[in-house]
Amino acid sequence: MPTANEAFVTLVATEAYGRGALVLAESLRQHGTTRSLVALVTPQISPPFRYALGRVFDEVCEVDVTESCGAARLVLLQRPELGLSLAKLHCWSLTQYSKAVFMDADTMALSNIDELFEREEFSAAPDPAWPDCFNSGLFVFRPSHATHAALLTAATCLGSFDGGDQGLLNTFFSDWATKDITHHLPFIFNLAITSLYTCLPAFTQFGSKARVIHFLGAIKPWHWTYHSQHGTAIPPDSGAGPATGILGPLVTKWWLLYENSVAPLLEEGRQVTKSTTEPTELPLASTGCPDQVSGDLKQALVVNAMDSLNLTGDACQRESDEHRRRSPPP
Amino acid sequence: MPTANEAFVTLVATEAYGRGALVLAESLRQHGTTRSLVALVTPQISPPFRYALGRVFDEVCEVDVTESCGAARLVLLQRPELGLSLAKLHCWSLTQYSKAVFMDADTMALSNIDELFEREEFSAAPDPAWPDCFNSGLFVFRPSHATHAALLTAATCLGSFDGGDQGLLNTFFSDWATKDITHHLPFIFNLAITSLYTCLPAFTQFGSKARVIHFLGAIKPWHWTYHSQHGTAIPPDSGAGPATGILGPLVTKWWLLYENSVAPLLEEGRQVTKSTTEPTELPLASTGCPDQVSGDLKQALVVNAMDSLNLTGDACQRESDEHRRRSPPP
Repeated sequence: MPTANEAFVTLVATEAYGRGALVLAESLRQHGTTRSLVALVTPQISPPFRYALGRVFDEVCEVDVTESCGAARLVLLQRPELGLSLAKLHCWSLTQYSKAVFMDADTMALSNIDELFEREEFSAAPDPAWPDCFNSGLFVFRPSHATHAALLTAATCLGSFDGGDQGLLNTFFSDWATKDITHHLPFIFNLAITSLYTCLPAFTQFGSKARVIHFLGAIKPWHWTYHSQHGTAIPPDSGAGPATGILGPLVTKWWLLYENSVAPLLEEGRQVTKSTTEPTELPLASTGCPDQVSGDLKQALVVNAMDSLNLTGDACQRESDEHRRRSPPP
Repeated sequence: MPTANEAFVTLVATEAYGRGALVLAESLRQHGTTRSLVALVTPQISPPFRYALGRVFDEVCEVDVTESCGAARLVLLQRPELGLSLAKLHCWSLTQYSKAVFMDADTMALSNIDELFEREEFSAAPDPAWPDCFNSGLFVFRPSHATHAALLTAATCLGSFDGGDQGLLNTFFSDWATKDITHHLPFIFNLAITSLYTCLPAFTQFGSKARVIHFLGAIKPWHWTYHSQHGTAIPPDSGAGPATGILGPLVTKWWLLYENSVAPLLEEGRQVTKSTTEPTELPLASTGCPDQVSGDLKQALVVNAMDSLNLTGDACQRESDEHRRRSPPP
């Protein structure tokens, strides 16, 4: 049973990332997390994926920022490039939890990381390319409608210097680099694979302590080919040889979780949903900002990027997770 | 006149880096530093370079760790790869200064950075490749024979995980990442050129605030070709075209300092030292750990890497800097 009202949250914007999210969730489960697991999914995710997500996560919440939220629509009108970022920011609206840890779907836990809940908002690890910015692939936050609204306001008024959520969040939480060292998560909690090679000596020294690996970059583990009979993963464009070096064993670990725990669930999802035409029959709670708050948010957009607005309504319903996660489908 | 007893310190281990050190010193002077400038030089630096260094720096101190210091010899016997690191660590023996800022010779100040002296030992900026380590290309420290001895002890007992001073110093000051945010210098005070391209959006956002540029990597500004008539710098293997992009203007700035201020001094040095056979005639103070402390240090090596030893003697003599720096040679 999940402990208290704290959760790990991820975003599933494509089915490829859905595979990553399922592996991430399994990695957290297998290392004995006591917290809830929440997946935010965008509308295009298909029923088999939603089925599998519903079996591993405690909550699966649809976020449709283009349709359900006036404030988000307003942001998208002015800054359409922020569409995916808005979906991610939606994690702040999960106010049924007092504290949460967001993790990108291309991360994987290598050990139990529940100690992250001892940190306060906003905590994150430094980004290896520009270390006075945090990497937004993993962060500790406190769900709050006021903060969510202020973030939407900031998205409109300030935008994102990199076009995504990392630039936006670094602008919003701009004192992270200078204010409080306890808000700096150790790099081993968001270890970018780009650092495996650019700083090999440090990886050799500290890599064995890695707690979360972040498969940053264009090539993700799901782009590799896994040969289950040999237990080896082969990177794209590598010929026939298995992966060697530092990255290979980490991707192989990802694939072991995928093959053993995720692939059977996806197959089950395909079987179960084959005859199903209505996604609403799946155990999925819909969320999104209620339309009635859009007026308040529009006002906030005019007044101040940092205004705190208390929005009401949280459409994401918590369901009986143990039943949904592990029991066989009816 | 230099203010108080604080100094910027650099290390000149080769004549190529000597060119860098001279540009660095000119960049600090031109931005109006009120602190002393100190160059540590290894024995192989030739008289013309020593002459030029002596005209720009307030002090030029020879560090010959292979000959002058029993403790250093002991380290080198066990870890010969640390030779250059030991020379750099020698900055802690400059106890005529109460506080100092070490800067690698491949850095260049883009504005006055005297505010760094408001920081305490040990302050440094994060390394972009592994941001829980600091980059040792620029750091604030307090000269102390005890710390110097403890560092030599650590070099023997703990070594360096990257084979250089950065690994050694990160092991010695291992609480930098977690203890005190004020010891984290802003990245713009040690901006690695590797980050110009790996994190272009952040550079676009924050790059105009850069205070010190660090020409990390194999290709240094002195490897570029400068066309003085056009005022353009051309990188190696680039064909005939001038440098474009972000890096070009920074390297051009380096070359402008070199051509206008450094090259004339080196030419003067060649003229002055042409008939000189004895480098001791040059304004150079010799330094190095006195031999009599080697017994104490050997004991420290056995007892504890962090023992604080009070060593006596500082062979580096401060000289009349204004006279040496700017007055014409006799």
